[in-house]
Amino acid sequence: MRLRRKSWAPQLIADHPQWILVNPENMAGKWQSRFEKQQPLYIEVGSGKGRFITEMAQKHPENNYLAVEIQESAIAMVLKKQVELQLPNLQLLLGDGAALTNFFAANEVNGIFLNFSDPWPKTRHEKRRLTYRSFLAQYQTIMCPHGELVFKTDNQGLFEYSLISMNNFNMLFDEVSLDLHALNDPDNVETEYEEKFSKLGQRIYRLKAHFR
Amino acid sequence: MRLRRKSWAPQLIADHPQWILVNPENMAGKWQSRFEKQQPLYIEVGSGKGRFITEMAQKHPENNYLAVEIQESAIAMVLKKQVELQLPNLQLLLGDGAALTNFFAANEVNGIFLNFSDPWPKTRHEKRRLTYRSFLAQYQTIMCPHGELVFKTDNQGLFEYSLISMNNFNMLFDEVSLDLHALNDPDNVETEYEEKFSKLGQRIYRLKAHFR
Repeated sequence: MRLRRKSWAPQLIADHPQWILVNPENMAGKWQSRFEKQQPLYIEVGSGKGRFITEMAQKHPENNYLAVEIQESAIAMVLKKQVELQLPNLQLLLGDGAALTNFFAANEVNGIFLNFSDPWPKTRHEKRRLTYRSFLAQYQTIMCPHGELVFKTDNQGLFEYSLISMNNFNMLFDEVSLDLHALNDPDNVETEYEEKFSKLGQRIYRLKAHFR
Repeated sequence: MRLRRKSWAPQLIADHPQWILVNPENMAGKWQSRFEKQQPLYIEVGSGKGRFITEMAQKHPENNYLAVEIQESAIAMVLKKQVELQLPNLQLLLGDGAALTNFFAANEVNGIFLNFSDPWPKTRHEKRRLTYRSFLAQYQTIMCPHGELVFKTDNQGLFEYSLISMNNFNMLFDEVSLDLHALNDPDNVETEYEEKFSKLGQRIYRLKAHFR
């Protein structure tokens, strides 16, 4: 989702280098140094306003979390939350999810979340979808063996596409849910978008998979 | 679906050996001899009352079709249709789908259809589902390279299970549809069950996949 430009965003970001890095080029292999404790690192690619990742960080103090977001106006909203929460296991990255292998070393990440990514429905935009094979190849590089990709969407076309793309990329499916909210999974943390659209009766799809 | 026993079924079957074989043990590698023309052979495992396979045979005279069904009372309904239609490219087999490798030679089949198979929802019945790995292994043996498995169901749990089972079996997905009837695919031939339940608003799922 595109957000309106926020005039206060650049200053907020400049003021909090302890919580957020902008296009960091020298962090590959060193992300653990940004956190209070050395523990498994999970990233969300496309964090939006950050409700999911802040809630995950609060629920799971035994893990470290990193919000990756390309939009300054979106990551600024996550930062606003974190300036209040001061969670020792949450960090932010303003940068392009298509450049993950610049930001992370091989095997540095334990798991990746993709939540309600832009569906880019036009065929000519296929390469922009976060489950296109060039993205999958990057996830494979930065994730440790058996690291899991957890993908949620309410977009039927994107889910169909992603099932095929991830299968054709030789990933192994661990779980498929075609109506996540009917499961009442107590471990499911909702995004802002997810809460809104599932309340309107929209089905939520989830796929968990890992690389062979 | 279980059908009531039909007292007339055994006699009808006995009277039409040109259209139907019962547990044939010597047919492996010789199915083409049962048809008027030598052309690609497609089988439906669990043909039910046979609307799908008879319509496919009528629409595609360029292919041969074989209905495989374990229930005598169901295959008798298909036979009744065929006695009327006399389609030269349709044959019937009364026998157990779990014994396919007894009935067919390796690479003898060009494609397999599974339509609205019994979901066997209880975990302890997993091995009876037609997309359980022991069935997939048989399909792999009897299908020629690049032969396609086409699976339709309205059962969400069975579809989720089958996506995982076929992915974990290393099959390659060609197409996934999470709402087949919204596509208005002119090539889709409906089963009796499919027409009834899609009219009630039930979603129909379809997966096309092949073995690597």
